[in-house]
Amino acid sequence: MRGHDRFFSNNAGVMESLQNHAEEQQYSFSKHSSWPNNQESTNNCKPRVGGFVLVHAGAGYHSESKAKEYKHVCKRACQQAVEQLKAGALAVEAVAAALVELEDSPFTNAGMGSNLNLSGEIECDASIMEGKSLHYGAVGAISGIKNPVLVANRLLSEAQKGKLSAGRIPPCFLVGRGAHDWAISHGVPPCPSEKMATKFSLSAYKRNKRKMELAEKMDTGHNQTKRRRQSSGNENGSECLDTVGAVVVDLQGNVAAAVSSGGLAMKHPGRIGQAAHYGCGCWAENARNMNPYSTAVSTSGCGEHLIRTMLARECSAAMQSEDSHQALLEAMQNMFISSPFLASEDRVLGGVIVLRCCRCAEPQPSPNVQGPLVEFLWSHTTESMCVGYMSAQDSKAKTHISRLPPGTIPGQSLAIEGGVCRLMSTVD
Amino acid sequence: MRGHDRFFSNNAGVMESLQNHAEEQQYSFSKHSSWPNNQESTNNCKPRVGGFVLVHAGAGYHSESKAKEYKHVCKRACQQAVEQLKAGALAVEAVAAALVELEDSPFTNAGMGSNLNLSGEIECDASIMEGKSLHYGAVGAISGIKNPVLVANRLLSEAQKGKLSAGRIPPCFLVGRGAHDWAISHGVPPCPSEKMATKFSLSAYKRNKRKMELAEKMDTGHNQTKRRRQSSGNENGSECLDTVGAVVVDLQGNVAAAVSSGGLAMKHPGRIGQAAHYGCGCWAENARNMNPYSTAVSTSGCGEHLIRTMLARECSAAMQSEDSHQALLEAMQNMFISSPFLASEDRVLGGVIVLRCCRCAEPQPSPNVQGPLVEFLWSHTTESMCVGYMSAQDSKAKTHISRLPPGTIPGQSLAIEGGVCRLMSTVD
Repeated sequence: MRGHDRFFSNNAGVMESLQNHAEEQQYSFSKHSSWPNNQESTNNCKPRVGGFVLVHAGAGYHSESKAKEYKHVCKRACQQAVEQLKAGALAVEAVAAALVELEDSPFTNAGMGSNLNLSGEIECDASIMEGKSLHYGAVGAISGIKNPVLVANRLLSEAQKGKLSAGRIPPCFLVGRGAHDWAISHGVPPCPSEKMATKFSLSAYKRNKRKMELAEKMDTGHNQTKRRRQSSGNENGSECLDTVGAVVVDLQGNVAAAVSSGGLAMKHPGRIGQAAHYGCGCWAENARNMNPYSTAVSTSGCGEHLIRTMLARECSAAMQSEDSHQALLEAMQNMFISSPFLASEDRVLGGVIVLRCCRCAEPQPSPNVQGPLVEFLWSHTTESMCVGYMSAQDSKAKTHISRLPPGTIPGQSLAIEGGVCRLMSTVD
Repeated sequence: MRGHDRFFSNNAGVMESLQNHAEEQQYSFSKHSSWPNNQESTNNCKPRVGGFVLVHAGAGYHSESKAKEYKHVCKRACQQAVEQLKAGALAVEAVAAALVELEDSPFTNAGMGSNLNLSGEIECDASIMEGKSLHYGAVGAISGIKNPVLVANRLLSEAQKGKLSAGRIPPCFLVGRGAHDWAISHGVPPCPSEKMATKFSLSAYKRNKRKMELAEKMDTGHNQTKRRRQSSGNENGSECLDTVGAVVVDLQGNVAAAVSSGGLAMKHPGRIGQAAHYGCGCWAENARNMNPYSTAVSTSGCGEHLIRTMLARECSAAMQSEDSHQALLEAMQNMFISSPFLASEDRVLGGVIVLRCCRCAEPQPSPNVQGPLVEFLWSHTTESMCVGYMSAQDSKAKTHISRLPPGTIPGQSLAIEGGVCRLMSTVD
């Protein structure tokens, strides 16, 4: 017995009404059950199995030719998380498992196959947050580690053990060579950098380098700086924004979120993006006191835009409002696209996946079944965003490439979609 | 014609009443003019001179023997900022000038004389934020640069120029070797690391190393990890928390904030503290729309505590309430000492300096004089905090070492003090 309702908004309509008539928003909001009704099979499964995962393979541009690969990796990531949940793992362990799968794909810009920086090296950012303990771990500009999220997760779990020798406070954020060495000393295996580059990432690097050299050549002569700064007109870097992430809720209602990225292509060495930045790349907070909902968020897109708007934390806070869809819509519009922090930017590129879960005052659908309601959403201002989702009762994950409505402008418009799902578990 | 009123709260009373009777807070709040009334001299000075700076040389423990040095450097930092303001500089330039002075002192844990890390190296964090543009620049774990704040400031100003060649987005946060190389390529001079260590920082390193080795020796044998984690009982690392920072408002009412730190003594290489972390080390936002006040905040203390509570941004947001003193008191109590993010910590160590400025609906003290009201405060849970402040009309800065009331426990209690000042300028 499950309730899966996906809802879709009329994106173009939403944007127009939000921009022009804040009080008179009219957006279509159709509910229909799009997931197979397999209540028979789930009602007979093991007791106390539950949980839900939502992953993303980036907000950016996903060509039709690569769509299949992106969907595949999202599917596998969901399955990894669900396997962990079924084995009784906490949300934070399940979210890390999903991230490892996403990082291991050569098609995503995280871990293996990450973008190369200006010097032709791979430097990764990753972070993870646990809603129960509110602990957080992050690594930035780390090289030679196949799965940066595992180092972030280890930082999180080490910090939970308390102080180090002589009263030293354990770190929550390590960068560069220091992060690499810490990882090795904590049993994370090194991976030669050359093994992390792929044919695709190397050819993208060469292409980008030529493009840069050409742009700089054109800028020589008078007024170099001014022209250099203006040379971005026809550029579209959104194809390189495919950071990955996941949000999970386990049967106990604990949430966790994680994010991992190779960063912008041709970034300066040492550049830290939102994926390593507290409050910007991911956020997870269990319900407590004034917060009726547990919320988890993971972001993707242009790191600097996501940092300066602290988008993960802002979306998480917004999700305490009653109407999750409206709350996310307003957060993306007011705190991202129209954010005063990005007033000077012509295109504001990013996407979020969001999950919230409430235990309170939910009617029980059946006397022998219990489970909180999970609402999950994604929204993006980039051309597309690839997501996957799965509950622990599902036999396989659903995947979807969300696209901006035709005729809308990336960086100035948004798409928002999502669904609801009841976490079922047979009472034992 | 100026109005300088310093107010002092009865800290012990505040804490007791806040903890026990949230509705019945009773704290003494005495106002008196503690600055010389030099209205004659200021009324005759150059037109349109104004601005105010508040600096800190860290929340931690300032022994009486070192108090003189700390006060001296705070005084010089204020003077540097005021000189900039008098020359017509914006708040962000003045705040950077104050920070350079604070970093250059061998007594502070920033720039010269920074704490050494576990490997005996100096790695610095710094960040700066401008309230007008809401731009921000930060460096983390940077070595071989005498004034990390200048690199952060340069990142801020470079980002304001727009995109780089081929449409690349300029970085706002660089770390490690990449940050160092970027600095050099942008004209910041390198400084050999050995010149940045002082006799004091080297002897502290040796002392700390012995202490660590002893603690780890005692922990060998059975149950090593458990005992290692518990060995912090009698430790007091607060003497090492003397991060520096400043907040400035210029005559136009623009605010800026900055912070710089060598980080915790014996930190792991690559560890990033709050001083490089957006929203955690400093925050500055000019008044706009719903925010009647321009606010600027700089923090000091245990980086991990300040990161996880995002204290700079939280205090800034709190300062939009009408009663600045009460707002800061509640922010420090509810969002720091009693923060759910630090529920597992026994001692929550930190301090903030805060400034807010309002142009709206302030009565003009004299028909030929104008200027907004500036409120400035500091609060800390550490044993002491050293601050200095100065307005552009003052001939010299005031300095003060604030201490927790006798008998209160660092990390569990707080001190809060501050004052008000009207930014004067002769109408031209």
